[in-house]
Amino acid sequence: MKVVALAGGVGGAKLADGLSRALPPGDLTVIVNTGDDFEHFGLHIAPDLDTVCYTLAGLANPETGWGRIEESWQAIANVEKLGGPAWFRLGDQDLGTHLERTRLLKEGVPLSEITARFCAAWGVKPRVLPVTDQPVRTIVQTDEGDLAFQEYFVHRCCEPRVSGFVFQGAESASPTPGVLEALAAADAVAICPSNPWVSIAPMLAIPGVRGAVQRRPTVAVSPIIGGAAVRGPAAKMYAEMGIEPSAVAVAAHYQGLARGFVFDAADSELESEVARYMRWVLATQTLMRTPQDRQRLARDVLDFIGANCK
Amino acid sequence: MKVVALAGGVGGAKLADGLSRALPPGDLTVIVNTGDDFEHFGLHIAPDLDTVCYTLAGLANPETGWGRIEESWQAIANVEKLGGPAWFRLGDQDLGTHLERTRLLKEGVPLSEITARFCAAWGVKPRVLPVTDQPVRTIVQTDEGDLAFQEYFVHRCCEPRVSGFVFQGAESASPTPGVLEALAAADAVAICPSNPWVSIAPMLAIPGVRGAVQRRPTVAVSPIIGGAAVRGPAAKMYAEMGIEPSAVAVAAHYQGLARGFVFDAADSELESEVARYMRWVLATQTLMRTPQDRQRLARDVLDFIGANCK
Repeated sequence: MKVVALAGGVGGAKLADGLSRALPPGDLTVIVNTGDDFEHFGLHIAPDLDTVCYTLAGLANPETGWGRIEESWQAIANVEKLGGPAWFRLGDQDLGTHLERTRLLKEGVPLSEITARFCAAWGVKPRVLPVTDQPVRTIVQTDEGDLAFQEYFVHRCCEPRVSGFVFQGAESASPTPGVLEALAAADAVAICPSNPWVSIAPMLAIPGVRGAVQRRPTVAVSPIIGGAAVRGPAAKMYAEMGIEPSAVAVAAHYQGLARGFVFDAADSELESEVARYMRWVLATQTLMRTPQDRQRLARDVLDFIGANCK
Repeated sequence: MKVVALAGGVGGAKLADGLSRALPPGDLTVIVNTGDDFEHFGLHIAPDLDTVCYTLAGLANPETGWGRIEESWQAIANVEKLGGPAWFRLGDQDLGTHLERTRLLKEGVPLSEITARFCAAWGVKPRVLPVTDQPVRTIVQTDEGDLAFQEYFVHRCCEPRVSGFVFQGAESASPTPGVLEALAAADAVAICPSNPWVSIAPMLAIPGVRGAVQRRPTVAVSPIIGGAAVRGPAAKMYAEMGIEPSAVAVAAHYQGLARGFVFDAADSELESEVARYMRWVLATQTLMRTPQDRQRLARDVLDFIGANCK
């Protein structure tokens, strides 16, 4: 069964990792959000891409959810000593990734090709595609003005009140070569439990992507459990957008895009409400604390797809 | 006695350090070569400036002569793992310097202002001025074509045969604010034992600098001892330029620019030859192995200046 996963940050990376353990390598393509990418210190930083690749490579820091395992912090400590901004915690190993990516981008190598080379070096088996090679930048509209995503997310700790989102450059961007082909060839598409507003939406805003997802049997996994996000600001964003955060809100969000919906067994009392927006629903354990959890959820999602899409 | 030192890499940094221990902080200005600067991985790297500042701050690695003490190498190890260029050994702490400098340059802060801020953070007492805030790039003309300085110096280990030098941008660059004023107010100028071809010459190529040095009592210290450079390619460059490398060659090089010349006691048999090019000469121990050596040479240079320039 050929599967395409749409992934953003930590939750997406974890399910992608589970899927990569449950499927033969050639059968999984992971399409990754680049709306979080930004320039910092002159380097091109791609947080979601790195989280997904580090996780698939077994190099991710299990405690922070971002960055590298066994990381050191000499460079950023010296930046801080010099009075520079240290709010974005660049680890020393992680910096190697940003340095080499920036160098190759300046040489004109597309981000997707760089990602393929890095994945080969790290031993990542599934195909990982940044959704586009062109710059797309998520802007968070807040009561304190428009903020670049990392400014909102890391520097301001998601504190400003959100009123909307803009995906700068998305309309004129085109999907990375292979994205539409992988979607067209997919037996199913899995929308990972990533933030619907800022991890999944930027990808869907790129011309052709939403339609290609819509045409396939698509299953979304809720990042909201018991009214709260497992991590990150998804629930806070729903509330500030005037929507009660819940698995139901996520199901409503993906109505018309996904046919299947996986949400947490803790929310099973919401099943009938969720079913108003989705053709197939599955309540199961979606929290991924351990590598076994990732694999089990991946199996549940694949079985759910298998049972519903013939 | 107000002294201006012209310095390039390691030898220049060591004498500047000796002078900074021998003079009250307000009396020493160190003007530093920027012809070695280059862009690498999108970062602005200023090797001579860093060597001088790290040395004055007591942060320099005493074994390598470049980079930081107690350095780690996680970032460049990851670059290498990704197949990127690792010939320029960027340490993790050192990277902090390049990151913050690059960030400030992109904000429009001049290199001289950045250097002043960094020196304040590191506790560097003498004033350190990059010779110019505009880009000057030393190109080494060789039998293998024109090479950017770091390409020649680090990547190619000074192997190609040298036929000349070009200081790109020097003619249209202007001295950093303060450079000409410091020179005009100096009781003496010390040309440190740096490479005359690639450390001192790029500074002299900037309009106004040579004349300002010429107008002051100037003393040059030979970087050549016993026909060899203490480190680096100075002797090899003299030979390839058709000049026998020796203290005499250095004295001839600086004729008309410096009035005084300090060379190593090991070469004292050359005194009469050296004296053909210089008004005042001093043979003394110029090799700086220990911090005490730096201070002693600085004292010798200052006494030599004091005895000759009233």
